[in-house]
Amino acid sequence: MSRLRIAVVGATGAVGQEMLRVLEQRGIGVEELRAFASPPSRGAAVVFRGEPLPLRLLEPGCFRGLDFALFSAGAERSRQYAPQAVQEGAVVVDNSSAFRLDAAVPLVVPEVNASALDGHRGLVANPNCSTIQMVVALKPVRDLFGLRRVVVATYQSVSGAGRRSMGELEAASRAYLAGTPEPREVYPRGIAFDVVPHIDVLDAAGWSREETKMRQESRKILGMPELRLSATCVRVPVFRCHSEAVHVETESPVDLEALRTAMQRQPGLALRPEADYPLARELAGRDEVGVGRLRLDPQEPRSLAFWVVSDNLRKGAALNAVQIVEHLCQARVRGGT
Amino acid sequence: MSRLRIAVVGATGAVGQEMLRVLEQRGIGVEELRAFASPPSRGAAVVFRGEPLPLRLLEPGCFRGLDFALFSAGAERSRQYAPQAVQEGAVVVDNSSAFRLDAAVPLVVPEVNASALDGHRGLVANPNCSTIQMVVALKPVRDLFGLRRVVVATYQSVSGAGRRSMGELEAASRAYLAGTPEPREVYPRGIAFDVVPHIDVLDAAGWSREETKMRQESRKILGMPELRLSATCVRVPVFRCHSEAVHVETESPVDLEALRTAMQRQPGLALRPEADYPLARELAGRDEVGVGRLRLDPQEPRSLAFWVVSDNLRKGAALNAVQIVEHLCQARVRGGT
Repeated sequence: MSRLRIAVVGATGAVGQEMLRVLEQRGIGVEELRAFASPPSRGAAVVFRGEPLPLRLLEPGCFRGLDFALFSAGAERSRQYAPQAVQEGAVVVDNSSAFRLDAAVPLVVPEVNASALDGHRGLVANPNCSTIQMVVALKPVRDLFGLRRVVVATYQSVSGAGRRSMGELEAASRAYLAGTPEPREVYPRGIAFDVVPHIDVLDAAGWSREETKMRQESRKILGMPELRLSATCVRVPVFRCHSEAVHVETESPVDLEALRTAMQRQPGLALRPEADYPLARELAGRDEVGVGRLRLDPQEPRSLAFWVVSDNLRKGAALNAVQIVEHLCQARVRGGT
Repeated sequence: MSRLRIAVVGATGAVGQEMLRVLEQRGIGVEELRAFASPPSRGAAVVFRGEPLPLRLLEPGCFRGLDFALFSAGAERSRQYAPQAVQEGAVVVDNSSAFRLDAAVPLVVPEVNASALDGHRGLVANPNCSTIQMVVALKPVRDLFGLRRVVVATYQSVSGAGRRSMGELEAASRAYLAGTPEPREVYPRGIAFDVVPHIDVLDAAGWSREETKMRQESRKILGMPELRLSATCVRVPVFRCHSEAVHVETESPVDLEALRTAMQRQPGLALRPEADYPLARELAGRDEVGVGRLRLDPQEPRSLAFWVVSDNLRKGAALNAVQIVEHLCQARVRGGT
């Protein structure tokens, strides 16, 4: 791959840090890396390839000369600065929700809909973490048997809410076990030894934004604008990796052996044998979307269930963004530009 | 209520202990209480109404003179001793899975199907904990709109696996936070800061026994032998109370206000207003089945979702068993016997 000049915006965050790690680990030829953070980080540095990299502030011209800008600093910052980055010549891969549902912006999980990258206009959206791992597992089901309805319940780790949230789980768990008062800043009703069915804000009809994201983004990525999908998104006292219980009604009866074969061949997916299943702690720091407990309801060959686990900071965010960069580079090579 | 003579079999277990507490708290006129435990507890005592109560061993004649025997000592012990208790004149309320699917044995959640108690033959089964709280919430939905299909994902506390399991969660969490090796006897792949989609044994088709219980027992309690119900049962690092994400497809379109009213009137159920929800730690030690986040899929008036939480040791086990005793006593009074 040609030598690239890349920016990471939000480089001190949980996802930004993971982006730096993924860029190191994937052997991408990074010629220049610019790490951006917000003013409180002024004067600080992040580490890239073992060397300190001074943090920069976003300002006019800061994206000039770059090939790519990976944004993971929240929707507001993306709305404000991503257009500038595009104008200054960088292709933006945006991890925020700002542009995901914009019809002019591809929303891409490379193993599922890489072709959506064709004809992008300088901006590509990285989907929500819970959505990414689910659609990688749903793709072979859709391809072979069609999707009539999807019901998903999530078991999402606190790292999805950032580094402060991870610190609060640790501190609150210690406090609970010591019988002292728990910190409750990120989770006002507590997160230690409890599960909380509330991720992001709730709308007037009672759906959380996270649940709506899963419905809307899955529809766009899978190219099924009418897909019936209902989610309950729940924060659990786990530090890293999201787990999901997925129940699918298919259009045609499922041939479980054919599905197993398709899942084994599906890039990015690691299918466990028989009744085995992946666990969050075991997949932390790994790239795969783990699928297990694949099973059919008795006497119901159109009712499928399975368990999906993936590292929300890797495949759910940083890794997927870097894979998009890789695909765009390959397309550039293929296109001869 | 007349003065009762009651046995608790398995009095040292998590559910047995809760049975003693519920019997104290409900103001049932207990004239005699016999507490049974297995031989390792020989010579020990439990506390009832502030007084030590010596533990007894099961032996021929040990149930003579009793009105009721509450069993919570595992399916094997129930199979062995419940028939003896019936023969010796006690009405058995059995918390194990031994007789739940026996067509001659009522499987009862009093708020849902108390009439199934009529004509019992001395033995009544107490349902599985995850099933009890779900059917209390499903009853008003069934009554008003019919049930076409139920999909449930559970977030079950470790107390469902007994006292040893609670100790292991605490010890393993402390060890994880201290960076020392975690005890892994009950949970071979760990339970601290992880979620485990595996409760009870898995069958050849990949379903756990807990998931099959939820399907089969719900069908029997709701009187819907063909009900389509698919469950994923998951152990979470919570000490007490089970939470459940329930998604229901109904036969007719749901009128959400009518359902709210019916749920508010449903005995045993505490409906939270609007987008509010109950949490496991907040319901520990309480009697209610808490329901929250009641909502309909956009543009899908037959697709309902809600969140259910209840104390698995109380309503999920001990309280439900004692309520069965109360109903049987009332029926006896009404019947004039």
